[in-house]
Amino acid sequence: MSHDSHRSDEISSLGEFGLISHLTRDLVVKNNSTCKGVGDDAAVLDFQGKRVVVSTDLLAEGVHFNLVYTPLKHLGYKAAVVNFSDIYAMNAHPRQLLVSMAISRRFTISMVESLYSGIRLACDQYGVDLIGGDTTSSFTGLTISCTAIGEAPADELVYRGGADKLDLICVTGDLGGAYMGLQLLERERMLFEKEGNIQPVLEGYDYVLERQLKPEARRDIIGLFRELGIRPTSMIDISDGLSSELMHLCLNSDKGCRIYADKIPVHGETQRVAEEFNIDPVIAALNGGEDYELLFTVPVKQFEKVGNRHELTIIGHMVDAADGLKMITPQGQAITLEAQGWNSLR
Amino acid sequence: MSHDSHRSDEISSLGEFGLISHLTRDLVVKNNSTCKGVGDDAAVLDFQGKRVVVSTDLLAEGVHFNLVYTPLKHLGYKAAVVNFSDIYAMNAHPRQLLVSMAISRRFTISMVESLYSGIRLACDQYGVDLIGGDTTSSFTGLTISCTAIGEAPADELVYRGGADKLDLICVTGDLGGAYMGLQLLERERMLFEKEGNIQPVLEGYDYVLERQLKPEARRDIIGLFRELGIRPTSMIDISDGLSSELMHLCLNSDKGCRIYADKIPVHGETQRVAEEFNIDPVIAALNGGEDYELLFTVPVKQFEKVGNRHELTIIGHMVDAADGLKMITPQGQAITLEAQGWNSLR
Repeated sequence: MSHDSHRSDEISSLGEFGLISHLTRDLVVKNNSTCKGVGDDAAVLDFQGKRVVVSTDLLAEGVHFNLVYTPLKHLGYKAAVVNFSDIYAMNAHPRQLLVSMAISRRFTISMVESLYSGIRLACDQYGVDLIGGDTTSSFTGLTISCTAIGEAPADELVYRGGADKLDLICVTGDLGGAYMGLQLLERERMLFEKEGNIQPVLEGYDYVLERQLKPEARRDIIGLFRELGIRPTSMIDISDGLSSELMHLCLNSDKGCRIYADKIPVHGETQRVAEEFNIDPVIAALNGGEDYELLFTVPVKQFEKVGNRHELTIIGHMVDAADGLKMITPQGQAITLEAQGWNSLR
Repeated sequence: MSHDSHRSDEISSLGEFGLISHLTRDLVVKNNSTCKGVGDDAAVLDFQGKRVVVSTDLLAEGVHFNLVYTPLKHLGYKAAVVNFSDIYAMNAHPRQLLVSMAISRRFTISMVESLYSGIRLACDQYGVDLIGGDTTSSFTGLTISCTAIGEAPADELVYRGGADKLDLICVTGDLGGAYMGLQLLERERMLFEKEGNIQPVLEGYDYVLERQLKPEARRDIIGLFRELGIRPTSMIDISDGLSSELMHLCLNSDKGCRIYADKIPVHGETQRVAEEFNIDPVIAALNGGEDYELLFTVPVKQFEKVGNRHELTIIGHMVDAADGLKMITPQGQAITLEAQGWNSLR
């Protein structure tokens, strides 16, 4: 089906099967493990002795995103990438993606195409095959549910549990940026709704906006681990905020932790925007979420390997469970960490 | 976490992680292929040389179900079973299930528990492991997205394409019942909304109501195929109506079909209710959907094997694509089949 075969932009002009074949018409399979993608009751995969890793996420309009300031293409990209991030957090590689969508009746074909183009761009960037899904209408808002499937040799998988006492706690990239980007977008939205007809001021905020609207998953780090011969003892991706993720690692590893506030990596622009909003950037990093960086632990003896990489920052170390989860301030004060990360059900 | 550890029935009293661990607290793994289920960034599976089969479905409140007459436990059961049905339609066995839910803010913990108990009952009945998911809030209605994963030896998989000319077209069980059950529930709902305060009349309609509210997937048929030494040449499950599914088989196999109206299996109660509603039961079978029976083709030489089974009915045969898709009436008239099955996007 070509772009020109329908004159109307109404989804009803294609129907469900028509829309799906329109959206998936030129998908090319990239991975050997994908035997059959879209077009049957189920997709068929073959992992030839490797372990299969599966993760799923659901994004609901009004809860996880606001279409007022989220371009549909970016939303599609992000919906896919956050699932890939979960697979990388297992030290595995995503290979396939299934996407289900409930589309509001106000949507047109072009709108669904934009959303889908973002999903497909993410799949292309990360070498993932889009192998199926379900497209239906919704009486209310847009809901996107993605399931990512990955693979890894059994002995390379890294879980949340596995950190030992004295293991170094590391993070990739920098934190708090996505949260500050969201604050900025929300400020401009509220101004717009109050004053009307004004242009949002978003110039000079490129970094934090990109962190919020077009996050990337750390595929490069999984490659770096192989290259450096590092196998983390535990790992998780930072979707809900550093504090909440540290709690998961500690709980699953039956350990406590000490992290140092002044070691938490924060980008210069994040710092500046945080000051503008009168928010402590460390709080943005701890509780903000959506950074999709990796939090992991390695044995102390691997200090040399992780200590000199600009992509990696050592922020503390594991301790006995009885010693609790604490952050040490620059003044030497120990603050108990609590999971105040983003939680849609509170 | 025990039932008594929270006094409130408010979901916010548990939060997202609390709710998930509450709902998944005593899951027991049933399949060897499930290495790690709920509790990490992703689940880990190992299929030891078998092909992996994946399918996903999304159900949206107001589109696919109405909570006025759908008990939450039944809804959970059905959400899981319709995904298992897709896996059986590949001649494979479902082994794992992931469930994501966006829960309306009016929901309580008990309500989510009911929904989950239905999902878990289905998993228990069909020997499937619940290995993950995502639970979030919704500003609007309830959305449930399920992804089922199954396995089969590569040479046992059956696709939609593969039917040859003259192959026999068979269906399992009987058709149209789920649709008549829905008509009945809708009639009673409308009466209730109009008159108020009256009890719905649902006695004597057990079969069609069960077909609508608690459908089963045809796991038994997959076993029967093995027992009888049958490998269908093509197969699909009947979720959108016989007419629409026949179209999929014919399109994918590049064939046409002849089916005989008086061969389409209809249950006595479906027949009776259809008469009551002035609906031709054949139309209910062709366009109604949600029967979750299997539609498949076998070579003519397997006539003996399928012809004497009460679970199976031969309803016609495949023809050349040029001869089209037609149903022959008892009067010998040939009617061209059109996919008028259920389509949420029209």
